[in-house]
Amino acid sequence: MWTPSGIVTLTTDFGLTDPYVGVMKGVLLGIQPQARLVDLSHGIPPADILTGSRILQEARSFFPPGTVHLGVVDPGVGGPRRPILLWAGAQVFVGPDNGLFWPILRRHPDARVVHLTKGEYFLRNVSGTFHGRDVFAPVAARVSGGMDPLAMGEIVRDLVPLEDPLVLVEGDVLRGTVLRADRFGNLLTNIGRSDLEAFLEGASPAIRAGEFQVFGLSERYEDVPPGSPLALIGSFGHLELAVNRGNAATLFRFGGGALEVRISRDRGAGVSEFPC
Amino acid sequence: MWTPSGIVTLTTDFGLTDPYVGVMKGVLLGIQPQARLVDLSHGIPPADILTGSRILQEARSFFPPGTVHLGVVDPGVGGPRRPILLWAGAQVFVGPDNGLFWPILRRHPDARVVHLTKGEYFLRNVSGTFHGRDVFAPVAARVSGGMDPLAMGEIVRDLVPLEDPLVLVEGDVLRGTVLRADRFGNLLTNIGRSDLEAFLEGASPAIRAGEFQVFGLSERYEDVPPGSPLALIGSFGHLELAVNRGNAATLFRFGGGALEVRISRDRGAGVSEFPC
Amino acid sequence: MWTPSGIVTLTTDFGLTDPYVGVMKGVLLGIQPQARLVDLSHGIPPADILTGSRILQEARSFFPPGTVHLGVVDPGVGGPRRPILLWAGAQVFVGPDNGLFWPILRRHPDARVVHLTKGEYFLRNVSGTFHGRDVFAPVAARVSGGMDPLAMGEIVRDLVPLEDPLVLVEGDVLRGTVLRADRFGNLLTNIGRSDLEAFLEGASPAIRAGEFQVFGLSERYEDVPPGSPLALIGSFGHLELAVNRGNAATLFRFGGGALEVRISRDRGAGVSEFPC
Repeated sequence: MWTPSGIVTLTTDFGLTDPYVGVMKGVLLGIQPQARLVDLSHGIPPADILTGSRILQEARSFFPPGTVHLGVVDPGVGGPRRPILLWAGAQVFVGPDNGLFWPILRRHPDARVVHLTKGEYFLRNVSGTFHGRDVFAPVAARVSGGMDPLAMGEIVRDLVPLEDPLVLVEGDVLRGTVLRADRFGNLLTNIGRSDLEAFLEGASPAIRAGEFQVFGLSERYEDVPPGSPLALIGSFGHLELAVNRGNAATLFRFGGGALEVRISRDRGAGVSEFPC
Repeated sequence: MWTPSGIVTLTTDFGLTDPYVGVMKGVLLGIQPQARLVDLSHGIPPADILTGSRILQEARSFFPPGTVHLGVVDPGVGGPRRPILLWAGAQVFVGPDNGLFWPILRRHPDARVVHLTKGEYFLRNVSGTFHGRDVFAPVAARVSGGMDPLAMGEIVRDLVPLEDPLVLVEGDVLRGTVLRADRFGNLLTNIGRSDLEAFLEGASPAIRAGEFQVFGLSERYEDVPPGSPLALIGSFGHLELAVNRGNAATLFRFGGGALEVRISRDRGAGVSEFPC
Repeated sequence: MWTPSGIVTLTTDFGLTDPYVGVMKGVLLGIQPQARLVDLSHGIPPADILTGSRILQEARSFFPPGTVHLGVVDPGVGGPRRPILLWAGAQVFVGPDNGLFWPILRRHPDARVVHLTKGEYFLRNVSGTFHGRDVFAPVAARVSGGMDPLAMGEIVRDLVPLEDPLVLVEGDVLRGTVLRADRFGNLLTNIGRSDLEAFLEGASPAIRAGEFQVFGLSERYEDVPPGSPLALIGSFGHLELAVNRGNAATLFRFGGGALEVRISRDRGAGVSEFPC
């Protein structure tokens, strides 16, 4: 039984200069005047499904049950990709079936997936280029207003998988990837706490990513002197490489591309080889 | 009879780093605590009345009747330009009389225009530099709360026209302009669907703008291969030049200045001359 | 007696690309579903407590009594800096004790300061790196929902002072500082109206800051010809250096660093020495 909270979050690659986000909000409020709208991010790089997916995963558990998450990173808009709805963990996700919600399905195998096929719940005229406004916002508004998510279309079982970089153990090395730098220059990886702990088996880690190299895990930035590098499990549960009161992305010249993280078990007396 | 929806949209050239937008919202909520506030854009280039005007036109029809649109692109603040209110199409627009709302009046000749002369509806101390906060937000809040728009001042008939680039037919050529690129690099023109259809008389268009050249109109980006240029009627009803899964502004080196669009009727077998 | 308005403002150095602001809103709405959330700025430069402090001061008086201001510019998160709450001027401020709220205490010597020590009002798991989400948002939500601010912890008397640039009179010169440029390139100083008036004693000012030089105070930008420099008391009560229909920061090559402002009393026939 679906009980909405009235909250609808919005995550897009639209930016905030064009009126596209505002227009989606107009559609949402036109259908569901009492919706409470929260922006997660509209700064997803255009068409970057992986980053959109990660941001939805990071944010969702901090919203109450009954929240509807509208996610529109939709480079295939107008093409054959399906409009879908995912009901998982007492929340509903609405957007394109292009991998954006795949990690949520992976963590909620009992999730219900609905192919949005009922045009009567869309705007009257559906454009070929803006389904966020014409398809997803109207459906999100109706579900947030209390309509049954399963009534929005046909229940399906499959979802397009996300092509996300893997976390792998190869011999004595755990390999992952820096996914992005945040505004502070912290390097956010795809290595989760449980993956790391299972690999380390109580040992201390030696962590390397490009020029970044550090031994051990900190609890907080302030655990090391200002300007020093550190690694910690970030506030969303993934390994993060940082510099206390500094900017790791700048210091280690992270340019936004793929950056491999290699972790080994530090059996000796860990002394950082980091030069400065 | 004015029936407010309770929604107030905000469109400014203030950006989001300074607290100017937040302060206007404080004034709005102080007067009308139940107002639901929606940002359309605060990324209008400073003093760019044309872009502000266009964004308001694009967005307004997706908001319900009774919405109040606060538009503050106001390079002449404190000078002789009048503060005005426009009641058109069951919505109200509040801001400076500098062309920002001119296209709305053009489409709604029966609109009522009010010169905001009643200082009792403004903040007590009106600064010489921030009428968005001191004049327009208080008036928008009161109208959104149900006060009669016509009671806000004196009804007038004229409005300062907008200097917007024209769409012209010269011989066999329809000439318009790229107004701006959106975040995806799509080039948004001032050529509306009806102007284009009236010119084409059923023929297929040959479209040229700087290095961009394409034959025919697509329905959606996915109609052409990735990386290929296309033209379509965008989701707000105007001709748009794009590259499927690419960035037309980058590919065609659109720098933000004036870029003329020339369209002719393609009587022959349209083969794109576009080199790549 | 604390009577909340239901409004919670947010001021951070988080930016809008990462989901950090959205996540704080999820926590706020999860605890206090009826809160009305207003962003003041999330574009504070990382760790720039001075700018955060100034923006809070500029904005707060435009919000109604009972507003809760959440301020998170927190470079020492996880370290020994205290989480605090300030109840001043019928509003409540929640954030780190690092100077951010110092100017508010200075103007409200009767303010109550509370060290946030009651973990039962925080999120269950408090991370070492994101107290905005885990500590400050939950406390702000509870206070906005009507809980007694003084019940959130232990009343204390001291607050960490802000290291802010001084306004000084040295002989016949009043010296202050440009704090930042706004989006329009207006140079915002730390010289308040009352400091200036007390110094001038009715004389007209001669104002110099780097290459910027002007005589006299204007009331509005339009008082001088387009392209000409001027000085005025800005809409938040501080001296501002501007160029009518232009950008003072660009014209005078303000790069964001410290820029001293020197003011003398203009006893003669003030003729601007400004070359263009």
